Amino acid sequence: MPRPSPAGPVRLGPDARAALRPAVTVIEAGLWHTRREVNARTSIPQGPELLESAGNLHNLRLAAGAAEGEFKGAYPFVDTDVYKWLEAAAWQLGQEPAEELTADVDRITGLVAAAQQPDGYLNTWFQLVKGGERYQDLRWGHELYCAGHLIQAAIAHHRSTGRPELLDVARKFADHVDSVFGPPGSGKPIDGIDGHPEVETALVELYRETGERRYLDLAAYFVDRHGHGLLGGEAYCQDRVPLREATNVEGHAVRQLYLLAAAADLATETGDAGLRAASERLWQAMTTTKTHLTGGLGAHHEEEDFGDPYELPNERAYCETCAAIASVQWSWRMALLTGEARYSDLIERTLFNGFLAGVSLDGERWLYVNPLQVRDGHTDPGGDQSARRTRWFRCACCPPNVMRLFASLEHYLASADDDGLQIHQYVTGSYTGEGITVRGETDYPWHGTVALTVEETPADRPWTLSLRVPQWCRDVRVRCGEETYEGPVTDGWLRLERTWAPGDRVVLELGLEPRLTAADPRVDAVRGCVAIERGPLVYCLEQVDHPGGGLDDIVLDTSRPLAVKHRPDLLGGVTTVVAAGRRRHLPDAGWWPYATADEASHQDGEPIELTAVPYYAWANREDGSMRVWLPTS
Amino acid sequence: MPRPSPAGPVRLGPDARAALRPAVTVIEAGLWHTRREVNARTSIPQGPELLESAGNLHNLRLAAGAAEGEFKGAYPFVDTDVYKWLEAAAWQLGQEPAEELTADVDRITGLVAAAQQPDGYLNTWFQLVKGGERYQDLRWGHELYCAGHLIQAAIAHHRSTGRPELLDVARKFADHVDSVFGPPGSGKPIDGIDGHPEVETALVELYRETGERRYLDLAAYFVDRHGHGLLGGEAYCQDRVPLREATNVEGHAVRQLYLLAAAADLATETGDAGLRAASERLWQAMTTTKTHLTGGLGAHHEEEDFGDPYELPNERAYCETCAAIASVQWSWRMALLTGEARYSDLIERTLFNGFLAGVSLDGERWLYVNPLQVRDGHTDPGGDQSARRTRWFRCACCPPNVMRLFASLEHYLASADDDGLQIHQYVTGSYTGEGITVRGETDYPWHGTVALTVEETPADRPWTLSLRVPQWCRDVRVRCGEETYEGPVTDGWLRLERTWAPGDRVVLELGLEPRLTAADPRVDAVRGCVAIERGPLVYCLEQVDHPGGGLDDIVLDTSRPLAVKHRPDLLGGVTTVVAAGRRRHLPDAGWWPYATADEASHQDGEPIELTAVPYYAWANREDGSMRVWLPTS
Repeated sequence: MPRPSPAGPVRLGPDARAALRPAVTVIEAGLWHTRREVNARTSIPQGPELLESAGNLHNLRLAAGAAEGEFKGAYPFVDTDVYKWLEAAAWQLGQEPAEELTADVDRITGLVAAAQQPDGYLNTWFQLVKGGERYQDLRWGHELYCAGHLIQAAIAHHRSTGRPELLDVARKFADHVDSVFGPPGSGKPIDGIDGHPEVETALVELYRETGERRYLDLAAYFVDRHGHGLLGGEAYCQDRVPLREATNVEGHAVRQLYLLAAAADLATETGDAGLRAASERLWQAMTTTKTHLTGGLGAHHEEEDFGDPYELPNERAYCETCAAIASVQWSWRMALLTGEARYSDLIERTLFNGFLAGVSLDGERWLYVNPLQVRDGHTDPGGDQSARRTRWFRCACCPPNVMRLFASLEHYLASADDDGLQIHQYVTGSYTGEGITVRGETDYPWHGTVALTVEETPADRPWTLSLRVPQWCRDVRVRCGEETYEGPVTDGWLRLERTWAPGDRVVLELGLEPRLTAADPRVDAVRGCVAIERGPLVYCLEQVDHPGGGLDDIVLDTSRPLAVKHRPDLLGGVTTVVAAGRRRHLPDAGWWPYATADEASHQDGEPIELTAVPYYAWANREDGSMRVWLPTS
Repeated sequence: MPRPSPAGPVRLGPDARAALRPAVTVIEAGLWHTRREVNARTSIPQGPELLESAGNLHNLRLAAGAAEGEFKGAYPFVDTDVYKWLEAAAWQLGQEPAEELTADVDRITGLVAAAQQPDGYLNTWFQLVKGGERYQDLRWGHELYCAGHLIQAAIAHHRSTGRPELLDVARKFADHVDSVFGPPGSGKPIDGIDGHPEVETALVELYRETGERRYLDLAAYFVDRHGHGLLGGEAYCQDRVPLREATNVEGHAVRQLYLLAAAADLATETGDAGLRAASERLWQAMTTTKTHLTGGLGAHHEEEDFGDPYELPNERAYCETCAAIASVQWSWRMALLTGEARYSDLIERTLFNGFLAGVSLDGERWLYVNPLQVRDGHTDPGGDQSARRTRWFRCACCPPNVMRLFASLEHYLASADDDGLQIHQYVTGSYTGEGITVRGETDYPWHGTVALTVEETPADRPWTLSLRVPQWCRDVRVRCGEETYEGPVTDGWLRLERTWAPGDRVVLELGLEPRLTAADPRVDAVRGCVAIERGPLVYCLEQVDHPGGGLDDIVLDTSRPLAVKHRPDLLGGVTTVVAAGRRRHLPDAGWWPYATADEASHQDGEPIELTAVPYYAWANREDGSMRVWLPTS
């Protein structure tokens, strides 16, 4: 049984102006437990071998002068695969000590330390391929991006194990960066930013871990220097417009989201009202106009870009797994900063759909992009942008990113404040705030009942147990002793204020009727379509469940009820939604698929029973077509 | 007044098995005349200066040892910009001698000749940047692609002017290629193909121009070696599957289309039934499943790829201008080979829409990609893939390609066979087949009346005047003397067999009622939408014509009639289509744009008069949003 990890990726500083403070959760059973077990038993343990065969560890040995040969890999940021894996392993060790994993972490930490240059700089690409030339290509070099991931790994290692080795390396690099980068007049040689934000949020966390204010100041400097043309003014690099002036998210999705996570961090630690306003404004603009139903982000393969408002394609959805992870990281910081439930609404949607789809059920195969549709007759390009799961990628950013989020997931589920405990996500396990422990029992997301038992409570004073009522939920009840409530739900929170005693029991009932969802009419890609959802889960059709043809001639019959069928045998155990549909008879259009509107009538077709499975579980059986959005006529 | 050019880009060989033979047209007035005048007076004359400032001519001087400095440009195929411009200029000189243009052509031909290496090889990138290393990167090197465009330019120059200078250079390069490339066992050093097809169709034409059979054999070898993994088996390079086995077009659109033009050429010259069957099959698959309404081809920005069947996005339509040109070239070869009218149906649609949109009305600004939608709030990336017209491109393949098609357009309009003359496209001017001349008078595409007068005819024998009835036309009449016919229209041809006399007059009436067009329901991108068309023209809305808001909240009212309004003042004189619509009231969805289907009702909105303009004329006024496909509810 995993123990509670002592601290997660976000630990507020002493002056933080956050509405909420992170609470500790232990996940003991259920879907997230199962998937985290796969992460712990399969994905993380296979990391060192994969990093070895891809060449990442070899590069570190080369840089340390401990091996001979050529640099391996195609990108200047290959070191981050190692750092993200180290971070994942560290969070895992925080929950459950393990000899073999500790040995791997120690060994790889040693490689990292040995590769570091005497002044703290560390980037194997630039050391080996670019002859040690530094910071000459900030737009594409990713040197500070790499520093950021190193710092995050080091903090995880230090928080989880109490050991200083990796943190020492990271601080040395951070100090080096701090000696090089600064505003004009600071006496630092370079006024610059990295084309890929990441170091900013890492530096805030390093401030939190060490108490050194200069790391926070450096993060603030980097955040505010974006958008002033230092990198040529490209949206791709988050350099077209300063965050404080931006009206919508834009450019490379992951870059935008990591930068916004840092903005939220800074607003939290410094009370910067401008950054807080920008974060709130951009989150609202993103969710309203640039978010796929799955929580996936990024509409363009080209430049991994957000695209235009309401441009949310299905088969060409990019929805990089890393963007889903970055979105969770940003939204969690916003949830803590503001106390608003909607941020955790998006986290829930993203975790159960856009994120969870990124790794196979067996933990061994990955998706970099997460489309909402694969067409009949799809010709897959293979490679990193394949719609088929892949063992590892040339640009392997996503797999270790998934590993680190899984391994730290318990830190995104609950919070505490002076008034009590807030439960953001429902699991079987325990939530521990400040002097309060509540135990949860649930089969969520398959069943909507969550039983909560107070285990530890101050005896003498009332406090509030706040339960997030998901934004999708239209039917909520809570029993508390003999009483039943349906509300009020205020801004997404159902708040129960009591003087609690150990053993007090609350049962939350979230209605999980399957539902048909339609989009804002400006989302052209899904006009005339609905999606099947149930609870936090987005559903999809897969070709394998619909023998006798493809999916692109299928129409959903919205007049017939949806039925729910739990299938313990299927895909690790899922609840399916069964719907009625038809296979259209498509007229032979000759050679031209466009006809005058009055000629373009389409006949009815054969009835067909449609079986929808959770989107997160797609692409775990034979290759075929897939659809989230289903035409209705 | 331009004279008839003696010969166009396709001249059938002596053994050709074509159903039809090219006929000569002179375009004297009307839309095509106007646009060709802009091409002749503005676009082509500006070419040398643009090629000079982009560095293409500088590179040739460098390669000739006649200048010093660095290679300019980012691609190994920059020489083709010069070759395509030379081809355009040559076709232009074939119609109208011009001193200054001749001097430019002579000067640039001299640069090309001087840059050629003694053994015939010529590629400034490899000569200057790669240290003369040849054919080491056939996947990306474009050396044979460059040879192909040189050959096509040389043939144009020779046919138009009778002069040998450029043809000598091209033959020397072709002979060099023939000495290097061949199948295993041929004794040639390399068994290989170029990643970008183009040399194949050029070699067929070189056979036609010179009578040298070995050029035809070399073309056949190259065509058939595609699809066997010589370039790693990528669809991008047309190497995943042999054409003879392919079931749909795939990979990089222009590469696929140039290869298919060569396949049609080979089927024509050699009677190769397998290549003919493949060409017919792939044309049918392409038009049925992978062609945008505008005739545009290529659904992905990423890899400029065709995408999946029925994957035809609007704002992310790629529809490279070069792909439209390549499509015309392939379809014309298929029209000659088979005699079928549908190939010229696609040519008409492509010329009036997907092709013509590629250049501004003033002939000075270009589109590389031709989207069918630009959203409200669009953030343009700039660069080659901009949705805003650009003066010249980093990869400047499209502008000189447009110039050469304009300058040779009169060779794609009519044909002759033993039975008479076939008119494929309607213009004011003259069509001259074999002993037959027919004069056309029309305001097409603005008016549907085409008056045809026989000017030259054999006196003693009947022949057939075949008039293509466009695939979109539902209302056709023809008056021939006192008689009126409405058919029969057989496979797109209305055939009038007579013993004709000079002065005989035929009046064709093509109904041009504006119409609403819908797509096959598998084209997800346009579900619930219609497009406005009139005659061969696809229409669009532009934001500039709809003040007071954007376009993405507009709905077309299909119950109200469409009205036609000719606007001589607008966009060089266009017929607009006026329709009734509404601006939807969009409910405030809060932060999440997806709602349960029964909540997602949308209120009516304000009535608005919609003004649709021909798609080809878009993006000639202020920047803004644009839509071809319009929601109906």
